[in-house]
Amino acid sequence: MASKKIFLSEDEIPRQWYNILADIKMNPPLGPDGNPIGPDSLAPVFPMNLIEQEVSTERWITIPDEVLDVLTVWRPSPLVRARGLEKALGTPAHIYYKNESVSPPGSHKPNTAVAQAYYNKEFGIKKITTETGAGQWGSALAYACAQFGLECKVFMVRVSFDQKPYRKTMMAAWGGICIPSPSDQTKAGREALAKDPDTPGSLGIAISEAIESAVTDETGQTRYSLGSVLNHVMLHQTIIGLEAKKQLEKVGEYPDIIIGCAGGGSNFAGLSFPFVYDKINGRQIDIYPVEPMGCPTMTKAPFVYDHGDTARYTPLLPMHSLGHAFVPPPFHAGGLRYHGMAPTVSQLICEGVIEPRSVSQLKTFEAGITFARSEGIIPAPESNHAIAAVIEEANKAREEGREKVILFNLSGHGLLDLNGYERFFAGELSDIALSDDEIKAAETVFAEFPKPQVLKHG
Amino acid sequence: MASKKIFLSEDEIPRQWYNILADIKMNPPLGPDGNPIGPDSLAPVFPMNLIEQEVSTERWITIPDEVLDVLTVWRPSPLVRARGLEKALGTPAHIYYKNESVSPPGSHKPNTAVAQAYYNKEFGIKKITTETGAGQWGSALAYACAQFGLECKVFMVRVSFDQKPYRKTMMAAWGGICIPSPSDQTKAGREALAKDPDTPGSLGIAISEAIESAVTDETGQTRYSLGSVLNHVMLHQTIIGLEAKKQLEKVGEYPDIIIGCAGGGSNFAGLSFPFVYDKINGRQIDIYPVEPMGCPTMTKAPFVYDHGDTARYTPLLPMHSLGHAFVPPPFHAGGLRYHGMAPTVSQLICEGVIEPRSVSQLKTFEAGITFARSEGIIPAPESNHAIAAVIEEANKAREEGREKVILFNLSGHGLLDLNGYERFFAGELSDIALSDDEIKAAETVFAEFPKPQVLKHG
Repeated sequence: MASKKIFLSEDEIPRQWYNILADIKMNPPLGPDGNPIGPDSLAPVFPMNLIEQEVSTERWITIPDEVLDVLTVWRPSPLVRARGLEKALGTPAHIYYKNESVSPPGSHKPNTAVAQAYYNKEFGIKKITTETGAGQWGSALAYACAQFGLECKVFMVRVSFDQKPYRKTMMAAWGGICIPSPSDQTKAGREALAKDPDTPGSLGIAISEAIESAVTDETGQTRYSLGSVLNHVMLHQTIIGLEAKKQLEKVGEYPDIIIGCAGGGSNFAGLSFPFVYDKINGRQIDIYPVEPMGCPTMTKAPFVYDHGDTARYTPLLPMHSLGHAFVPPPFHAGGLRYHGMAPTVSQLICEGVIEPRSVSQLKTFEAGITFARSEGIIPAPESNHAIAAVIEEANKAREEGREKVILFNLSGHGLLDLNGYERFFAGELSDIALSDDEIKAAETVFAEFPKPQVLKHG
Repeated sequence: MASKKIFLSEDEIPRQWYNILADIKMNPPLGPDGNPIGPDSLAPVFPMNLIEQEVSTERWITIPDEVLDVLTVWRPSPLVRARGLEKALGTPAHIYYKNESVSPPGSHKPNTAVAQAYYNKEFGIKKITTETGAGQWGSALAYACAQFGLECKVFMVRVSFDQKPYRKTMMAAWGGICIPSPSDQTKAGREALAKDPDTPGSLGIAISEAIESAVTDETGQTRYSLGSVLNHVMLHQTIIGLEAKKQLEKVGEYPDIIIGCAGGGSNFAGLSFPFVYDKINGRQIDIYPVEPMGCPTMTKAPFVYDHGDTARYTPLLPMHSLGHAFVPPPFHAGGLRYHGMAPTVSQLICEGVIEPRSVSQLKTFEAGITFARSEGIIPAPESNHAIAAVIEEANKAREEGREKVILFNLSGHGLLDLNGYERFFAGELSDIALSDDEIKAAETVFAEFPKPQVLKHG
């Protein structure tokens, strides 16, 4: 038997997260006055223990036992040698994927949802609000809140809410409440509806609604939670890459290429940051975050200061951004429909440590079908972006006759996204790309903001 | 950290299946003339290597490496201590569940689908036909066929096909073809439609269609595959119980009570048969298969000889049966809508080794919600039947103040069954039970058949 899955024992589970802020320099978040903000200004939005993690520069942060207790229901997640895919492509490359789809909500998202629910609970919070795109994040937070006895309210981007009728039911099964965004429950939502009653919605709008809903709760016991972008979210996801490193060691391999899809950046960061540490310290690896052509934040948008949400409730963050008012077209990868990108990921792009790519919608579904038939797992439409890039690299390795080691993150399964596959099979999907004019138009919203500095690690 | 999941290393994966036919006596299957049939008469339906397994009385049968290569993508499946559920119920019982939902198709079904696809491939078969109720089995076989390059055609019971629009897409993602049954593609289907054009369909009818579709294929390279009931299916599923035994040993526990839902019997048998072996050899365990009140095969129907399908293509099998013409009411646990029960499970019921129970639909969904909130996994409606019985036993342990060890099988997740949960939340579901008159009426179909003998092990 040549097992495809690489095992880790209970003793080998990482007990600390890796914090990339120890190893790179970052532009600080700015307040409305253009000056760096302190932790206190975030206190109405997040519990202080998470704010401390957000700004920490300690390289290793201990994972609380209570968090590991929940994570180990499915962790360590399988690292699988994709022998079926290799065979289907006829490539000499060794392809490995980290299978994050085995978590109860079906994606990598609970890695941080569980941690965030725990820290909120510790801080005495009773209720968490959030937004969700594809629904993976909202489901994960509803799940995590159920584990710690917290209430959960999720604003779901309307186009995804309509595409995936069962996401709401899934959250309800865990006791969470899910409403389509923009809604009439918040000022931000009402403004978005007034502007365009038929808007497909966007993560930017949904974030505004969720923040507003948290900070206006008069009990003071509600906080907001973000499923990507922020430093502490990236931190919590590094358990993926830390496990993968140990698993690859067991079979004597080290990746030449690392690939992850990136919407806000968290699954990509989770897999890649522990290897970015090696790269910063001299190791040669090609690291590719992959985004949709319909929302080309990393590949087409500038590195600027911009808000994380449409109503401009968040501080100004240093990131690649298509503009906080940008509403991405309604393609079938809701988790990648975000105007910005995690500041840490953006910083690494600026430094040339990682190299972003974009792919078109049809190619991603084709890649997903190839993967489903050869490896057996039906991927989330988001994950298909990574797979499309993996197939490209594996084909290149075949042409070059090189036995490259490719590692990628299977961020989630597509069992709640079969509507997208159905439309793909029916020939109803098309490629969606932004024109340069559309991108230029979107950028006007941050023209007046301060510009981030050019920083370099080391 | 007190991990809830009990780990097994790669070396500890079972390399042999346990065959209960070595330890119990069985009435033989009979042909149309009422005489026992030989292996040859099954040759048009199944490949000979699987027929040999069907009749083998070897206690241990080696699992081929090619099968383990695929199974280890997700196996060993997690054995999880349900501390959340224990806490929610306030019970001193130790509750453990085997989480079979982590397989790519989301249930225990691929344990045998992969084995059957392998043996068919080995025998030179190119295409497999089958039926499916809830869709778990059809999905699993489509998945398995994709792993071995076989074609797959699935007849899906119409009521489930309509309840779960995405099952078809899921099978299509793996290259399988799924059509609602009864269909106009077979004589058996056309007869069922002529009798009742609005029939919800049944597993009995779908089996007839799938068998007919296989045996009438003139290439001779098509065979039929059954996802439950038969001896070789139970055999392949025993990997569940064999793993569970090793996992429980690691934490120094042994079950007082074992519970699984049972439609055709395969997930129940898979978990319990390795423990039935212990019970036959003197160990005290309570073993409960659980079925819906809407299809009370084990608890209300007699042990008889009957056909496994509506069109009477199968041999006569010794089993508890509501009659091969019985069309169960359309409750939301399609995998349990079967008129018969596995002959091995039926035999153990007759001997009093296992004790069947039934539960009502609403109670099963309530149990599923309790489990989802406390343990995090949204169960398949079928698995909810097991959970309802577990909750009953855990509550009894609390009343008695006894620290009982309860082991059950979480046969699958409910992510493709959220429609049922949605209807439950909306108050649209009701309890469905069969009246004694309905049961009596169904039984007339086997009145003329030979009667099985009363047999006893040892």
